Amino acid sequence: MVRYKIIIEYDGTDFVGWQRQDNGFSVQQAIEKAITEFSGETVILFGAGRTDSGVHALGQVAHFDLERDTNANTVANALNFYLRSMRISILSAEAVNNGFDARISAKERAYIYKITNRRGPLSVGRGNSWWVPVPLDDVAMNEAAKVLIGNHDFTTFRATRCQANSPIKTLDELTVTRCGEVVEVRARARSFLHHQMRNIVGTLKLVGEGRWTEADVRTALEAKKRAAGGPTAPPDGLYLVEVIY
Amino acid sequence: MVRYKIIIEYDGTDFVGWQRQDNGFSVQQAIEKAITEFSGETVILFGAGRTDSGVHALGQVAHFDLERDTNANTVANALNFYLRSMRISILSAEAVNNGFDARISAKERAYIYKITNRRGPLSVGRGNSWWVPVPLDDVAMNEAAKVLIGNHDFTTFRATRCQANSPIKTLDELTVTRCGEVVEVRARARSFLHHQMRNIVGTLKLVGEGRWTEADVRTALEAKKRAAGGPTAPPDGLYLVEVIY
Repeated sequence: MVRYKIIIEYDGTDFVGWQRQDNGFSVQQAIEKAITEFSGETVILFGAGRTDSGVHALGQVAHFDLERDTNANTVANALNFYLRSMRISILSAEAVNNGFDARISAKERAYIYKITNRRGPLSVGRGNSWWVPVPLDDVAMNEAAKVLIGNHDFTTFRATRCQANSPIKTLDELTVTRCGEVVEVRARARSFLHHQMRNIVGTLKLVGEGRWTEADVRTALEAKKRAAGGPTAPPDGLYLVEVIY
Repeated sequence: MVRYKIIIEYDGTDFVGWQRQDNGFSVQQAIEKAITEFSGETVILFGAGRTDSGVHALGQVAHFDLERDTNANTVANALNFYLRSMRISILSAEAVNNGFDARISAKERAYIYKITNRRGPLSVGRGNSWWVPVPLDDVAMNEAAKVLIGNHDFTTFRATRCQANSPIKTLDELTVTRCGEVVEVRARARSFLHHQMRNIVGTLKLVGEGRWTEADVRTALEAKKRAAGGPTAPPDGLYLVEVIY
């Protein structure tokens, strides 16, 4: 038996999310099907992060086992062949030792959230960022973001249906930068709560618009109530960019 | 009567090209329809560049006339409203004097061509660049590009069905740069022949792969025969980025 680690890029627009669901086709299912098609083996694919419907990945990581030892490049090429009609790309595949677990072994996950901040709606890249026509003050957003860095109870930024045992997480990085009309929020943590990144972005957007101050973000965090936070940003702008082991 | 200049971004994937055609829906038609919907007036929209099916624009320019004087911002917002289901975005609108002609007044047009140069196929951004898995030497491509800068007979790089009076054009800029896995070809000229940019990119790709040298590009140019040039690159990677007046 050989364990393979694959790095995956996908456009989440066409999928119900990473994880197998009853209400539609998931990225996990699509890749499991492709693995079966090329190998004849039925496998379960374990992913590092469960992205929601419409959320994208530039560097999702997953592992699976095959009975038959197969060259890792062949695995990547065969998967890409069977996935060719879908917006899923296997960027690399490698054989790893059986102790590797895409989810449990992960030390850190990095996400970016892209906002296109301009008057005109999106055409090229529609579905791949959040269109915000109101001018955003990215410097104020970046200052306010600092309030959330570190170890906190993130109940305010946690989806009501989040299943994590604890709302306490450590944000190692949270920065807001602008490059032309694109405002990018970047975050790094060992793990994230359900909707944590999108709820943070929805809150920082209020700061960017001038409707909230840094102090309001602090008050919201300390309230430890979802209702105290800003709205949930749409999935379109969110990308799982990297999983660090 | 008021003349309006609009700057347009669009994803060409869903359209038969800029210009009205019998075989499908064009960008020009889509915008003319939106103008009629908001103004009640039937207009002809004149574009600066005729992009082919699948070719995109970040800064196409067009003009049209309205009988009723309307605030330019209202024009942009109304058009974006009626175009909301399509991947067409009006970035700006302004009233201009009646001597302005989007096509004839243009001094220069700038195009970029994006190549994603990596092993894994495209997922995010599929349809928006050319996937080339063979490693490309962008420095060699940039050197070879210099052969084509300036005033030349571009018959080798001209579509057989091109209707321009003369194959002689002046390329003011042709550069190849790499940023990570993206190789970008940038060109600027007063005007371009049909398929000129895509035929140039298809030829420079041969240089990037090491199959052609700079000398081969010179020989091809001097042959003044389409058959002497490289293949036509797909439309996916091509963007009309700017029209200079």
